[in-house]
Amino acid sequence: MGNLGTLFSPERVAVIGATESSGAVGAAIMENLLDGFEGDVIPVNPNADEVFGIAALDDISEASDVDLAVVVVPPGIAVDVLKQAGEAGITDVVVVTAGFGEAGSEGASREKQLQSIAAEYDMNLVGPNCLGIISSPVGMNATFASQSALEGSISFMSQSGAFITAVLDWASDRDLGFKDVVSLGNKAVLDEGDFIDFWGEDPDTDVILGYLEDIDDGREFIDTARKVTEDTPIVTVKSGRTDAGANAAASHTGAIAGSERAYEAGLEQAGVIRAESVQELFDYASILEGQPRADDDGIAIVTNAGGPGVMSTDAVGDSSLQMADFTDETLQRLEEAMPDAANIFNPVDVLGDAPVDRYDEALDIVLEDPNVGSVMVVACPTAVMEFEDLAEVVADTSRETDTPIATSLMGGESATTAASILDDVGVPSYFDPARGVESLDALRQYARTQDRTFEDPARFDVDEERVDEIIQRAVDRGSNALGVEAMGLLDAYGIPTPEGDIVDNPKDAVAAAEAIEGNVVMKIVSPDILHKSDIGGVEVNVPVEEVADTYDNLISRAKNYQPDADLIGVQVQEMLDLESGTETIVGMNRDPQFGPLVLFGLGGIFVEVLEDTSVRVAPVSEREATEMVDDVDSAPLLRGARGRDPVDEGAVVETIQRLSQLVTDFPEILELDINPLVASPDGVSAVDVRLTIDQDKRNGGN
Amino acid sequence: MGNLGTLFSPERVAVIGATESSGAVGAAIMENLLDGFEGDVIPVNPNADEVFGIAALDDISEASDVDLAVVVVPPGIAVDVLKQAGEAGITDVVVVTAGFGEAGSEGASREKQLQSIAAEYDMNLVGPNCLGIISSPVGMNATFASQSALEGSISFMSQSGAFITAVLDWASDRDLGFKDVVSLGNKAVLDEGDFIDFWGEDPDTDVILGYLEDIDDGREFIDTARKVTEDTPIVTVKSGRTDAGANAAASHTGAIAGSERAYEAGLEQAGVIRAESVQELFDYASILEGQPRADDDGIAIVTNAGGPGVMSTDAVGDSSLQMADFTDETLQRLEEAMPDAANIFNPVDVLGDAPVDRYDEALDIVLEDPNVGSVMVVACPTAVMEFEDLAEVVADTSRETDTPIATSLMGGESATTAASILDDVGVPSYFDPARGVESLDALRQYARTQDRTFEDPARFDVDEERVDEIIQRAVDRGSNALGVEAMGLLDAYGIPTPEGDIVDNPKDAVAAAEAIEGNVVMKIVSPDILHKSDIGGVEVNVPVEEVADTYDNLISRAKNYQPDADLIGVQVQEMLDLESGTETIVGMNRDPQFGPLVLFGLGGIFVEVLEDTSVRVAPVSEREATEMVDDVDSAPLLRGARGRDPVDEGAVVETIQRLSQLVTDFPEILELDINPLVASPDGVSAVDVRLTIDQDKRNGGN
Repeated sequence: MGNLGTLFSPERVAVIGATESSGAVGAAIMENLLDGFEGDVIPVNPNADEVFGIAALDDISEASDVDLAVVVVPPGIAVDVLKQAGEAGITDVVVVTAGFGEAGSEGASREKQLQSIAAEYDMNLVGPNCLGIISSPVGMNATFASQSALEGSISFMSQSGAFITAVLDWASDRDLGFKDVVSLGNKAVLDEGDFIDFWGEDPDTDVILGYLEDIDDGREFIDTARKVTEDTPIVTVKSGRTDAGANAAASHTGAIAGSERAYEAGLEQAGVIRAESVQELFDYASILEGQPRADDDGIAIVTNAGGPGVMSTDAVGDSSLQMADFTDETLQRLEEAMPDAANIFNPVDVLGDAPVDRYDEALDIVLEDPNVGSVMVVACPTAVMEFEDLAEVVADTSRETDTPIATSLMGGESATTAASILDDVGVPSYFDPARGVESLDALRQYARTQDRTFEDPARFDVDEERVDEIIQRAVDRGSNALGVEAMGLLDAYGIPTPEGDIVDNPKDAVAAAEAIEGNVVMKIVSPDILHKSDIGGVEVNVPVEEVADTYDNLISRAKNYQPDADLIGVQVQEMLDLESGTETIVGMNRDPQFGPLVLFGLGGIFVEVLEDTSVRVAPVSEREATEMVDDVDSAPLLRGARGRDPVDEGAVVETIQRLSQLVTDFPEILELDINPLVASPDGVSAVDVRLTIDQDKRNGGN
Repeated sequence: MGNLGTLFSPERVAVIGATESSGAVGAAIMENLLDGFEGDVIPVNPNADEVFGIAALDDISEASDVDLAVVVVPPGIAVDVLKQAGEAGITDVVVVTAGFGEAGSEGASREKQLQSIAAEYDMNLVGPNCLGIISSPVGMNATFASQSALEGSISFMSQSGAFITAVLDWASDRDLGFKDVVSLGNKAVLDEGDFIDFWGEDPDTDVILGYLEDIDDGREFIDTARKVTEDTPIVTVKSGRTDAGANAAASHTGAIAGSERAYEAGLEQAGVIRAESVQELFDYASILEGQPRADDDGIAIVTNAGGPGVMSTDAVGDSSLQMADFTDETLQRLEEAMPDAANIFNPVDVLGDAPVDRYDEALDIVLEDPNVGSVMVVACPTAVMEFEDLAEVVADTSRETDTPIATSLMGGESATTAASILDDVGVPSYFDPARGVESLDALRQYARTQDRTFEDPARFDVDEERVDEIIQRAVDRGSNALGVEAMGLLDAYGIPTPEGDIVDNPKDAVAAAEAIEGNVVMKIVSPDILHKSDIGGVEVNVPVEEVADTYDNLISRAKNYQPDADLIGVQVQEMLDLESGTETIVGMNRDPQFGPLVLFGLGGIFVEVLEDTSVRVAPVSEREATEMVDDVDSAPLLRGARGRDPVDEGAVVETIQRLSQLVTDFPEILELDINPLVASPDGVSAVDVRLTIDQDKRNGGN
């Protein structure tokens, strides 16, 4: 796969399947290309001498110097056509044709053929089953949409072609422009990761927008997006957010849905701003395109009406922003400049009799306050001020400041001209002040993403060989599940476990118990016995002199209960003071898109009843592991709530990181649960663990 | 206060303070009235012979047969003018003049004078400090807004006059009409409760909208709104929802803010639909005005594009609606009518090549499904269908069905004409499908409100006299706080308490212990000792033979610890098996607007750390008390989570109701906490209680 530059700025575009026949996709694409594309358009159609007055080639093999081929021939011959294009040296191809992965097993096998041809010729292939692509700087509309895009600095990709047609229609009405637009289609070759990678480097793209129904390779997407979002914001709607939506998406795309929790964690870790609706998507895009960074959480509101000021403040309360706390200097300057009845505290009320100059003064003053990271201007219609005049003042102010501004000019027609004055300088204007505040919030969210440092996950010094051996033993005996024997895995990765050993005779049991201070816990060890307590397979508080007898008792109970069970032996373990500790759970399962997903929560009711857990895509850094602990509602219980001593939170965070390393190093670990991990003021101890391995993956399969 | 009918449909309106002077409020109101009002307008101004060509009176006393007086004279003379109006027999008055409650102590005392004059002459008084009122059926615009209202069936009240000017300006641009509009101002006499009461009976009002910053009498509002919402939906923005917003509102209105939790509970109990933003307010109003009831949670989505179908389904997932489960008959009919590639399951995808007839057929089929309570039509632009044609089909369908429909025609200019065709039949249309789904959700929410039966709170047979005596004893000794002695209050109201007694000598202590089976708990009883355990004031598991000595020990410890403490005696109580029970908390505090607010939660960490509680305004019915238990996240712990026996939930619900009755019967109880109320499979027991009384209220004060 090469750089995508030529895909978006070709000089010669061939349309394979070009036609003049009305209503045909091949005609619509020809017409769109001929309407504005700066380069050459070459129709390919063996049954026509010319198409729209341009001499048609019989065959793409005849073409020379073609940069981009758009394929609209029927699916049955598309594969051959692609091969011909490859032979002709064309490396950028858009396959509009449908009838591939989305169309049964025959289609799926055709799609596999597309993929191998693309690999063979190192092609950048968009689609198949897509609307096409647009690149406005070269006037190229290689889609069959009825509307093209105005020029702009937003690049937009969508897994729904219809949504693109809708957005183009709507955007042209609003002077909203795009740099590139891509209909992703089946994503046989190029996917969302490739496009964000390219647009991240593209100087003409200021904002990347996406409508996504799934992400092919979650981990890769995270890594790419992190780099891209250092300079270019990414805003996406990821649909199928809700259970209902996920069901609908699955029936629409046929994709195996990753869990919403994985997407939520993954997109957050990637630094992507997630929009929940079409309105949010474009509100956020507009302000990110038009306004500077918001360098502080503090927002100042300047209004000429108390009620709308309160509504705006409520919107701030709903957001991650804070009402800016003005400095004394600001308050003093406002007091001098504003009439007595004005409210100089935030939200600043310049009063209903405010002429435009008073707004101007108030704006200038709050913009100089170091605690103000963004400004929301709210105005109701009055007899003493025209919205247009206010818009001019805000536009002038906006040109001179590095602080972002949004507005709510609360009127109808009278606000329309004003809005277009503001639009020219990239200041958004909405009737509802909440939309303005939410937009500024998205801007601030992006600044926080930029400021975030992505340190690499820590690599602890661990004993990988020992883990490998333990897993191999399970594989050799044909077992997918590991019980207490998996304690060795944790130990090998430096996760503290209670003192003790697994033994297979009474003598070793006594020796193990003698090495431990105080009485011990003894548990049967068998991959076939899951509920050990139920069969009397656990004895607690065993004094050393009773250890040998207890060993025999446990073994004979297990044999009685399940004669065919594979008995590994007995675990002899120190007694932990569970009363002084707090039970937590650290676990992992694998998501089809994002891979290993690490989970943290407090044990018992907190996970089981309250579902109070946090997840991240592994490997996780120390910052991310710390966030996982912070994110659970029950975190105060670790920090000395209700008069208890705070637990060693650092040890919890480290355990999450070590487990993250373990499951990253060993992809054959399918699921893993440390439950409980007892956290106390002195550290943590993994009291019990369960683990499932994927035999196929262990054996080199996928 | 009389019926408000004449306020909104007067025949003769006097403007006291009328003038021609440009920019003056008295001029703006005159101009607005002269522009369209069907009745007579009478200017009153001692310094002018005529105003805008109409003979002016010197004095309102000279007027005869005036139905409504609008007062715009300066605040200093407004009180006198009001009195003259009263003398002249005018009972409907709008005081536009500012400078009352909002303007310091002088203003506040002027406002009190207004109130007493209004009471004396039984006046319907709007304001003061307001924009005025509008009633479109009689063409009356008695405000100083620059825009009037189109005719419509929405009546709108607002605590912000500026917000009214904004809404009028914006609405006129959108063909959104109003029946009445009221600027509430300071609400010296008429408040939100009076207007919902009137509009509830008004045949010309279909929907009531409100922008409120506070509610004067919460309980009265709930009772009125419950009646009104049987026939007329009420949608409000209650601003100051968030902490930030509440601070801003307090500084704006100077009102003592009730808690957001009280508003949330109270508005829900009242059946009011709460909008969180201006956009929601008008989206909900539009669909409630234009569309029929939604009789089922099931929603059908019909789309010509998969992606927007998934986005719409996500919006359903966010709402209280459910994707309708089609009957076999519906599926069969869709299968016959739609092409093979169409998705006949919900969301129904009629495909991008769908002509308008296919939409028509799909709509007809899903509308006949009994599981479909509302329909969302989603369409992207295609070459084979015009939005206008689809709009005609939806409009025709809408006329013939009792099922509500909303649309998302996802285009720009091409959707505008279509939207206006739909608007004519009251079908909303948004670019973002989420807004359509949210609107249908509000419609369904209103139907649920209508279906809700508000049974009266149960009245249990209780011993009010005993409660009165206990409170009186505390009052007599000058104490505001009651400790364990308050157990008697609970007992008198049938709330189970542990067996036992409060005694003041060792002999009675022994007698009390002998009456109890098993060992007992003994606690010092003193209103001055709050933390009994800390001073050794509690002894558990006391055998009967040690009771006398323990009595003496407890008393002497208490005397040592706090010699001046008022010692009531010692409580001798049965030992409860706390292990088998679950600790809950039932409490009450008083909200300045809504009065007694009853709270329920699980004890310990659930309330203290997780803040997992539910509240309702008392008195609560059995249904409301049941909802309170259902509403907490930790409720599963009462229902046998983690292998425990379920507790007697009915006894918990009954305790909430009995406590609700207690605090309603005795307004002098300021705060009350039963903590813990131990719930077990056998019932509940109030182990400890704290209570604060309001001496002033007890003595008849306010």
